[in-house]
Amino acid sequence: MAVNLPAVYLALLHYPVYNKEQEVVATAVTNLDLHDLARLAVTYGCQGFFVVTPLELQTKLVKRLLDHWLTGRGGEFNPTRKEAFSRTRVVGNLDAVLAMVAAEAGRPARIVATSAREHRGSVSFSELRARIGQEEGPWLILFGTGWGLTEEFLSTVPEAILEPIAGAGSYNHLSVRSAAAIVVDRLLARAR
Amino acid sequence: MAVNLPAVYLALLHYPVYNKEQEVVATAVTNLDLHDLARLAVTYGCQGFFVVTPLELQTKLVKRLLDHWLTGRGGEFNPTRKEAFSRTRVVGNLDAVLAMVAAEAGRPARIVATSAREHRGSVSFSELRARIGQEEGPWLILFGTGWGLTEEFLSTVPEAILEPIAGAGSYNHLSVRSAAAIVVDRLLARAR
Repeated sequence: MAVNLPAVYLALLHYPVYNKEQEVVATAVTNLDLHDLARLAVTYGCQGFFVVTPLELQTKLVKRLLDHWLTGRGGEFNPTRKEAFSRTRVVGNLDAVLAMVAAEAGRPARIVATSAREHRGSVSFSELRARIGQEEGPWLILFGTGWGLTEEFLSTVPEAILEPIAGAGSYNHLSVRSAAAIVVDRLLARAR
Repeated sequence: MAVNLPAVYLALLHYPVYNKEQEVVATAVTNLDLHDLARLAVTYGCQGFFVVTPLELQTKLVKRLLDHWLTGRGGEFNPTRKEAFSRTRVVGNLDAVLAMVAAEAGRPARIVATSAREHRGSVSFSELRARIGQEEGPWLILFGTGWGLTEEFLSTVPEAILEPIAGAGSYNHLSVRSAAAIVVDRLLARAR
């Protein structure tokens, strides 16, 4: 890894998000979300990836998964996956993420939330990309599962909300796996 | 959808690809690959998404999945997923894809393969993006499952091989779901 990479962390929030009926819920962890975002984080030189869930049973499940890949048979079977999960942690809430990032980076994180919906005053991809390259981090980019992070959360927590990914038409229902890949690539890819 | 969108098709090949031991295999279909690529194709205005597998049982499985979302309970439960799968088809081999694309578009497809490995003479993202905008299609972009499309296939079939996605360092193990999202965004996103 290059020395001057900006300090960027990713977090996948399973709460507070909407379900299909716009109710506020905690979603279940999806195994492939963890694989895909862990691999994405390492590929783009992110400092860490946090799986955030308030549900204790889900936390246990993720810990078992990480254990399988980090110290168990998984890592022998596929060392690249072991490397990917080496920067993945599971925590109960965003405060825990913030505490860990601040402790590691020596400064509080600048929180950027992502959303598939339009928000007044949202930051554009090009603007955020420039800021990440110029301003001191650490940056923490939040992704919501289910039908997205709640409006209440978005209105109070993040320092900035990133503009939604615009496709070709009005259909805009990417998986969080696809959306995270596109967001991270747009913000952090070397060549543009 | 805008009228002047270039005609682009995506295909996910489950054969001929490598497994972890560099053996040539046909991989099993992964449910979430289909969901993610179908949603991606519709979001970016692609004309179609082909799931390509030579295995009859896998074909049946995919057909059952499509049936669930297109005519069964799935479409009622989540109409946006029904819309995504409306452009998804499962076929046995690349020739069948080419025949369907040529029949629909009235011209043979220009085949572009993707790979996580470097290839001499590969086309860059910016060059291919420009060509897609300028030259007549249809374009067919191939993604390989497993550990990627075989060298033999890459050396004979496609008109061009796209350069690999470069992350921040030497680690380069994105899922095909993440890679496809990044490739399609780089080639087809409206704003750059």
